[in-house]
Amino acid sequence: MQRFINNPDEVVEDTLKGFVKAHRDLVRLSERNPRVVAAQVAPIAGKVGVITGGGSGHEPAFIGYTGRTMLDAVAVGELFSSPTAKSFLDAAREANGGKGVVCLYGNYAGDNMNVKMAVQLAAKEGLTIATVVANDDVCSAPASEREKRRGVAGEIFMWKVGAAKAAEGASLEEVRATAQKAIDSCRSVGIGLGPCTLPAVGHPNFEIAPGTMEVGIGHHGEPGTRVEPLKTAAEIGRDMASIVLDDHGLAAGTEVAVLVSGLGATPLNELYILNDAIEAEITARGLVVHKTYVGNYFTSLEMVGATLTVMALDDELKRLLAVEAACPAGL
Amino acid sequence: MQRFINNPDEVVEDTLKGFVKAHRDLVRLSERNPRVVAAQVAPIAGKVGVITGGGSGHEPAFIGYTGRTMLDAVAVGELFSSPTAKSFLDAAREANGGKGVVCLYGNYAGDNMNVKMAVQLAAKEGLTIATVVANDDVCSAPASEREKRRGVAGEIFMWKVGAAKAAEGASLEEVRATAQKAIDSCRSVGIGLGPCTLPAVGHPNFEIAPGTMEVGIGHHGEPGTRVEPLKTAAEIGRDMASIVLDDHGLAAGTEVAVLVSGLGATPLNELYILNDAIEAEITARGLVVHKTYVGNYFTSLEMVGATLTVMALDDELKRLLAVEAACPAGL
Repeated sequence: MQRFINNPDEVVEDTLKGFVKAHRDLVRLSERNPRVVAAQVAPIAGKVGVITGGGSGHEPAFIGYTGRTMLDAVAVGELFSSPTAKSFLDAAREANGGKGVVCLYGNYAGDNMNVKMAVQLAAKEGLTIATVVANDDVCSAPASEREKRRGVAGEIFMWKVGAAKAAEGASLEEVRATAQKAIDSCRSVGIGLGPCTLPAVGHPNFEIAPGTMEVGIGHHGEPGTRVEPLKTAAEIGRDMASIVLDDHGLAAGTEVAVLVSGLGATPLNELYILNDAIEAEITARGLVVHKTYVGNYFTSLEMVGATLTVMALDDELKRLLAVEAACPAGL
Repeated sequence: MQRFINNPDEVVEDTLKGFVKAHRDLVRLSERNPRVVAAQVAPIAGKVGVITGGGSGHEPAFIGYTGRTMLDAVAVGELFSSPTAKSFLDAAREANGGKGVVCLYGNYAGDNMNVKMAVQLAAKEGLTIATVVANDDVCSAPASEREKRRGVAGEIFMWKVGAAKAAEGASLEEVRATAQKAIDSCRSVGIGLGPCTLPAVGHPNFEIAPGTMEVGIGHHGEPGTRVEPLKTAAEIGRDMASIVLDDHGLAAGTEVAVLVSGLGATPLNELYILNDAIEAEITARGLVVHKTYVGNYFTSLEMVGATLTVMALDDELKRLLAVEAACPAGL
């Protein structure tokens, strides 16, 4: 492995140490729990707290979205593993400004279980945690079973919108409902060109044969819907947009936000090449691109590949997306 | 090659198309020259224009630093190749607000030649281009021949500081002198763990054997000062800081800005792990970290590796670093 690591079992700890050093103006490690990152400004009295949590290895997700008018706290799991219930609970405690906390997280078995336990534990101490579970990954289940779909990079829009709503002084139920609307407005797809390796394992836990690509791959190498010969970027971008938009079924004229994220080892210029084809397909369908994000927003260690997220916008979502914020990921 | 590309000979064109679509609020392609990116706000009457230029494949450098209170225009070369003199000239024309233009670029033979020609061509039309050439790459020549050193990620600080100074209404000579001070205050080093491949070539143009690393590698795979067995991140981070600071010779108590950039295929969590060790060495030497940047700021296609840049700060540099700006790279 050609990697910058120390002890493979301490990747998460070492990452967090370097992360809070780099961004100490915005974030801190919780004194309650070394697997919780909190915003320097958190908790904010009278504001609904906004938290998430998830496995590590997706940086800048999840920790990089902690900050001002962004997430108040984040529960940190081991690489590709859910945080503990205790960590979700401690994240909620860090974020608790007296108006309740909303946990905006992704649909994975471990996260579901641990968030549910944290909600129960928090209730015992009088802290209400409302939840929204993201399921924007189109290829992880058919539309008829959308509740089974995984959460992927659409979560970033959910966090941004939810945090902006909370900063406006909204109630817990209002923040929950708006974050739910945000993720319901998102559809995502991933394309894998190369696998990733957990340092403690030392070899990839899945394979992508050279000359092929995995369409619909998940953030942990979950198999996609099909393996295809590697196409041109123009074809891949068109296919990604088609998969997302065929599922979305948006009316012509709808304004959308577009997020093209690398999976870790794909260079930025290739993401721009993809974006050219993606936007061409989006506009060919009569949709209007309101804002585009291209970069490494939600990765999977050194996986080669990219994801596309399209969020349909209404006036409220446009307004909340534009709210000024500050977080290490720079959204 | 597991890459998102179309025609390997059109990587730059396709990148630029997707780039200006993604960031049309901030940047545009010049109507004079399809190899020049300009800020939407440029030119700004009465302001010194600030430009750069360089080979492609380093995204977000150079194009991603175009924007408001950042670069006014950028000349774009082919992959790892200098822009033409004509492109540098056209970038200067796009940036010309009537107070002259400063070109802040890196020390490479092609860039030196083409910038020099552009300066002469501009003079014929009454446009003064002042220049600053970056040479922050410590390992590319000994300290006694600093003028031979290459420019690397320290250029980002030079652009940021120069653009902020120009936005304050400074004269051409003041902007030039302050940008010169910024790059003179920078030292950088690169570590290579894996090579990159130019799409039109199809195989790496240099090798890094598994289990080894190249200390002092350049942004195009230029050989470093030594090949070593791959060390731990703690050791590598310490070595990177030592190389830079041994050359810098800063007095204890000096405040510094730190930039840790991935080279394209190194995941963000590993950059944070490096940063932990880098900051430890910097503070062990009695220096004070004022601000840290960690991310893919100046890359080399899908090279595996990282660079460290340390800039010594005075009050003016601190003030200019903090000036609000907007550019696709999000500095």
